[in-house]
Amino acid sequence: MFFASDNWAGAHPAINERLLRESTRFAAAYGTSELDRAIEQRFNEIFEREVAVFFVATGTAANSLSLASIARPGGVVFCHSEAHVIEDECGAPDFFSGMRMVPVEGALGKMEIASLEGRIARYPQDAVHHGRAAAITMTQATEVGSVYTLEEIEAVSATARTHGLPLHMDGARFANALAALGTTPAEMTWKRGVDILSFGGTKNGCWCAEAIVFFDPAMAKELPFIRKRTAQLFSKSRFIAAQFEAYLKDGLWLELAAHANAMADRLRAGISTSNSARLAWPTQSNEVFAIVPKTAAKAAEEKGARFYDWLEPRDMAELVGEDEMLIRLVSSFATTAEDVDAFLKVIA
Amino acid sequence: MFFASDNWAGAHPAINERLLRESTRFAAAYGTSELDRAIEQRFNEIFEREVAVFFVATGTAANSLSLASIARPGGVVFCHSEAHVIEDECGAPDFFSGMRMVPVEGALGKMEIASLEGRIARYPQDAVHHGRAAAITMTQATEVGSVYTLEEIEAVSATARTHGLPLHMDGARFANALAALGTTPAEMTWKRGVDILSFGGTKNGCWCAEAIVFFDPAMAKELPFIRKRTAQLFSKSRFIAAQFEAYLKDGLWLELAAHANAMADRLRAGISTSNSARLAWPTQSNEVFAIVPKTAAKAAEEKGARFYDWLEPRDMAELVGEDEMLIRLVSSFATTAEDVDAFLKVIA
Amino acid sequence: MFFASDNWAGAHPAINERLLRESTRFAAAYGTSELDRAIEQRFNEIFEREVAVFFVATGTAANSLSLASIARPGGVVFCHSEAHVIEDECGAPDFFSGMRMVPVEGALGKMEIASLEGRIARYPQDAVHHGRAAAITMTQATEVGSVYTLEEIEAVSATARTHGLPLHMDGARFANALAALGTTPAEMTWKRGVDILSFGGTKNGCWCAEAIVFFDPAMAKELPFIRKRTAQLFSKSRFIAAQFEAYLKDGLWLELAAHANAMADRLRAGISTSNSARLAWPTQSNEVFAIVPKTAAKAAEEKGARFYDWLEPRDMAELVGEDEMLIRLVSSFATTAEDVDAFLKVIA
Amino acid sequence: MFFASDNWAGAHPAINERLLRESTRFAAAYGTSELDRAIEQRFNEIFEREVAVFFVATGTAANSLSLASIARPGGVVFCHSEAHVIEDECGAPDFFSGMRMVPVEGALGKMEIASLEGRIARYPQDAVHHGRAAAITMTQATEVGSVYTLEEIEAVSATARTHGLPLHMDGARFANALAALGTTPAEMTWKRGVDILSFGGTKNGCWCAEAIVFFDPAMAKELPFIRKRTAQLFSKSRFIAAQFEAYLKDGLWLELAAHANAMADRLRAGISTSNSARLAWPTQSNEVFAIVPKTAAKAAEEKGARFYDWLEPRDMAELVGEDEMLIRLVSSFATTAEDVDAFLKVIA
Repeated sequence: MFFASDNWAGAHPAINERLLRESTRFAAAYGTSELDRAIEQRFNEIFEREVAVFFVATGTAANSLSLASIARPGGVVFCHSEAHVIEDECGAPDFFSGMRMVPVEGALGKMEIASLEGRIARYPQDAVHHGRAAAITMTQATEVGSVYTLEEIEAVSATARTHGLPLHMDGARFANALAALGTTPAEMTWKRGVDILSFGGTKNGCWCAEAIVFFDPAMAKELPFIRKRTAQLFSKSRFIAAQFEAYLKDGLWLELAAHANAMADRLRAGISTSNSARLAWPTQSNEVFAIVPKTAAKAAEEKGARFYDWLEPRDMAELVGEDEMLIRLVSSFATTAEDVDAFLKVIA
Repeated sequence: MFFASDNWAGAHPAINERLLRESTRFAAAYGTSELDRAIEQRFNEIFEREVAVFFVATGTAANSLSLASIARPGGVVFCHSEAHVIEDECGAPDFFSGMRMVPVEGALGKMEIASLEGRIARYPQDAVHHGRAAAITMTQATEVGSVYTLEEIEAVSATARTHGLPLHMDGARFANALAALGTTPAEMTWKRGVDILSFGGTKNGCWCAEAIVFFDPAMAKELPFIRKRTAQLFSKSRFIAAQFEAYLKDGLWLELAAHANAMADRLRAGISTSNSARLAWPTQSNEVFAIVPKTAAKAAEEKGARFYDWLEPRDMAELVGEDEMLIRLVSSFATTAEDVDAFLKVIA
Repeated sequence: MFFASDNWAGAHPAINERLLRESTRFAAAYGTSELDRAIEQRFNEIFEREVAVFFVATGTAANSLSLASIARPGGVVFCHSEAHVIEDECGAPDFFSGMRMVPVEGALGKMEIASLEGRIARYPQDAVHHGRAAAITMTQATEVGSVYTLEEIEAVSATARTHGLPLHMDGARFANALAALGTTPAEMTWKRGVDILSFGGTKNGCWCAEAIVFFDPAMAKELPFIRKRTAQLFSKSRFIAAQFEAYLKDGLWLELAAHANAMADRLRAGISTSNSARLAWPTQSNEVFAIVPKTAAKAAEEKGARFYDWLEPRDMAELVGEDEMLIRLVSSFATTAEDVDAFLKVIA
Repeated sequence: MFFASDNWAGAHPAINERLLRESTRFAAAYGTSELDRAIEQRFNEIFEREVAVFFVATGTAANSLSLASIARPGGVVFCHSEAHVIEDECGAPDFFSGMRMVPVEGALGKMEIASLEGRIARYPQDAVHHGRAAAITMTQATEVGSVYTLEEIEAVSATARTHGLPLHMDGARFANALAALGTTPAEMTWKRGVDILSFGGTKNGCWCAEAIVFFDPAMAKELPFIRKRTAQLFSKSRFIAAQFEAYLKDGLWLELAAHANAMADRLRAGISTSNSARLAWPTQSNEVFAIVPKTAAKAAEEKGARFYDWLEPRDMAELVGEDEMLIRLVSSFATTAEDVDAFLKVIA
């Protein structure tokens, strides 16, 4: 009953098997091996165009280096007020890019266009004192389990284009969003105007595989230096490539994400019919937010369930009663229906 | 015949096996799992004292964050003129620490004490314009295959103490040095006055396992924040811990290093009796530097041998003849005696 | 009718006269002259204790270096949501300190204690992902013309102490606040728990004189290096010292501030009895915020009046009618009663 | 007998007079006044082309922001091994630009082309690990009193062009060099291939007036933000403009520099015929380096002479005898022939 986060899961057997195979041979270091090249080519296929791909150690690194690659002095970056870049990365995006994250409001973890426009208006291109708009970053799937529709992505990118701002997508849960929308990687990114993508594999079956994808390779020309200078270039980079090879092979990644989403939906369904718990808000990917009696949460924990209290640090007291608690439940490729059912039982 | 670098090797079966086992279970993320705790405890045993340990993604990160943890505004860091921190990390140590690397001369990759003292004297503690001495970093084993003796380490740390400077050791090839000296981790570090160690596992059989070890845990108090803010905190950190568990178990790490060193010695012995090649300088760990006819080098490459030209980028023309070439040969845990003998044959 | 900002004024004759005198002699550079020493001593007298004083080029520098001196990795700094450090310094405090500014709400430009406590609670000392509380900065007088009472300063510093956070005061208009409260420099700072002060002279009769004052000199030990490394150490530093000498002599600074405040009060009084204009909120120092018909503002501008539109960039539309405008009027040491009366006439 | 540095002098009466006049009026802040505009236009005339000009607080700022404006991740900047940017600015250029200063050798403070080429060759454009060549900075006049000829400047800029590197000139003593060569500002800069100039006024009669001049305004487009973000934008910027107005009017600046140079030449002449002292090397601008008996130096100091010991911190022991001392003597616009003669007398 591990629902604390999808990064509590291990690694998928197919990925392990591929790592094993990789470990017995020699190959060129620092991302210059044939395997590295081949996987870069694989990303071209996945995204149906020539892209520039860079492997990095963590999702925080993927986001931070993406923003560093489009940094402008005095620039500010617009993100949802609950985005990982502003809430959960200890200022790494600010440190690497030299820019400030500016929060934009919006329901269900998605930036509302009017709020976004309002924020951008406050940072015109000649605002030497206040700072100038430099980039937009959106999270797909969001931090609260929702997913931008293709039309919503298009609306964000239209705003970005209007103001001449590059658009970054934090895709730590990219596969979950893709599975939720039932669309293609190309449709969910560059065809909708996304310029740079943090492509996450770690939360969905790899143990450490994050990539930055530039849809216009010309935008990536400083990245090799930015990556090395931030200590993110693995010597045995091909072990990241190997994970991605297995991950992307025969649609494994989408299968795993679909499974995780299905497990979340099973949780959702169980909670929605529960007497004691209720859904905090609708979600679409692999995260479910529920309001449960504190006693039930405590009992579940005692029986081994793991999840996060989402109430205290997030100022969400208005949502819940005094004896209640807002909890986040995250499913992963490794979550089983038995786990879900067991949890629903202990929480009931 | 892969002698380009020890990071061209794969990963050791015992480490793979441990990773496999780890991949099937759930555990707490971001370095908070029981396994992370257990391995931290294991480092205490290895170093015979309470230490503070932090896993990071790369050796460059280990060095850069070590220096960041002891950063002082306007500080300079003394290192050998051929050290990795000044030659091969694209300025990451400068970026993360805000300090400048100042080169110190010395034969065979080791800082000469007189040169070190001379450099330090130029950066007194009140040198607001010039910059002030803030730290010393030494590399063990060095970039050119030599190893500081315990007495030599003691001499560097005595200098550091005299001037009140913390001493960092870049141990990307720590195990190789340890095997070469036949001493203990404690003897080669804190008992000789080393304060912080970059402890490398990647070059010696892991695929990605680097750690920063603080011998005085009080010095490490900012490191958790520094690590997160530099995007170096793995969510599935326990997979680093798992590698280290296998690596450190039953002396595997020393065994692998001893093997790599033995293979280098076999190379050395072969070259020293060769008619066509000769040793550039004596080495003690798993790197051999040889001067070979350009034609022989070319022939070897055509037969599949891989090694680095060490001449051009390093201004070492005075060492070699016009038709010669200075090459670096690095052995690893995965190098076989057959590889070595085959290479000696093609180079002859 | 120059009410755009107090930094539109020139320099006071007594300060000019002192600069003239300074210009004819030689003296040691980089803040080491006898005059520099003497003025440092003068600050001791002004603040009734031993302080450490550092001259810098701009108010932005004073704030940024103050925060840099107490920087902690992953730290966040709490400030009012309209504070200069977060709204008007192009990210300099973030760049110099490596910390993020976190906005705190509160009426009239003053942080409300409950809001401040709420913000601090979200950044506990072990919040590696989210960031940790590291400092508080308050502005006295505030950006909107109000002044914290001594009790209010005490309340902020009590909060700071409770959480172990150093307290910085942005005193770009320190003299105006002092004059408004009729208290002493010591009472308004360290006796109320302030640790570091940006002491501004530029807006009140100097042409370029800003200082950082540490009430505990031990906290200042890194500042000389921070200042030099940020290119803020003037070679002819004594010309700053000379300005401060004249500024602080015989209470000139308080006299000038009292005059500026009186002129603002004259503006306030005129507006409060005006038929066309009204006060946006009460103010106490040398800034008046008024709501005027757009036509009146336009007419005033055409007759030479200068002031800032405070509406558009600040999202204050709810305060004013469609045909109205929120303007900021700042008086200075150089503002005359004639100027004020002329303005009141044209705006009427 | 103040020969410690040209920044020990005060300010020229014409500049003071202009400052006085400026102080009595109001004008727009932050570099937007008519005077700021007019002086920018004045620089166009001085340099015979359209330039972009930015005032900053210090020479260190001018150099650091110049380099920041052409910064590239992983870039290195080539400078003479005794240049101010690497020796005397506490790492400010590194901090502001994120680049590393790489020393180039050469006699008399001037980079030798062969050494420069050799250094550049070590930092090719694809050197992700080592760092890549990004800029060259040269000092005119140099730190040791010499002056690059126009042909020598051309040779440096030819090297820069060959490698596609922008060329910056540190002109803290630009006027002294100009007077020494008897050429024009245009001839000594953009007509010889210089891209960016730190134009210093402080050492030559202003009390605080430094500017960055971009010969291609398109290169300056980020500078307004870089300047504000580094706290270098003066609110009363027009007081810098005013200094420059007087400084540049009717050739005052060249007159003052010619005077300073003449005083240095008088020193040189006196020392060259002295029995006790001798010249360390030939100089051409306003700095003279002399080797004197320690006893003579001590006696001179006791009689009030001020100068710097140039021996100890610079490793120049090979130049002087055991009882001797290498001293630097700097003349300025305020140095008198009487001062020089008095000094020559006490040192004899």
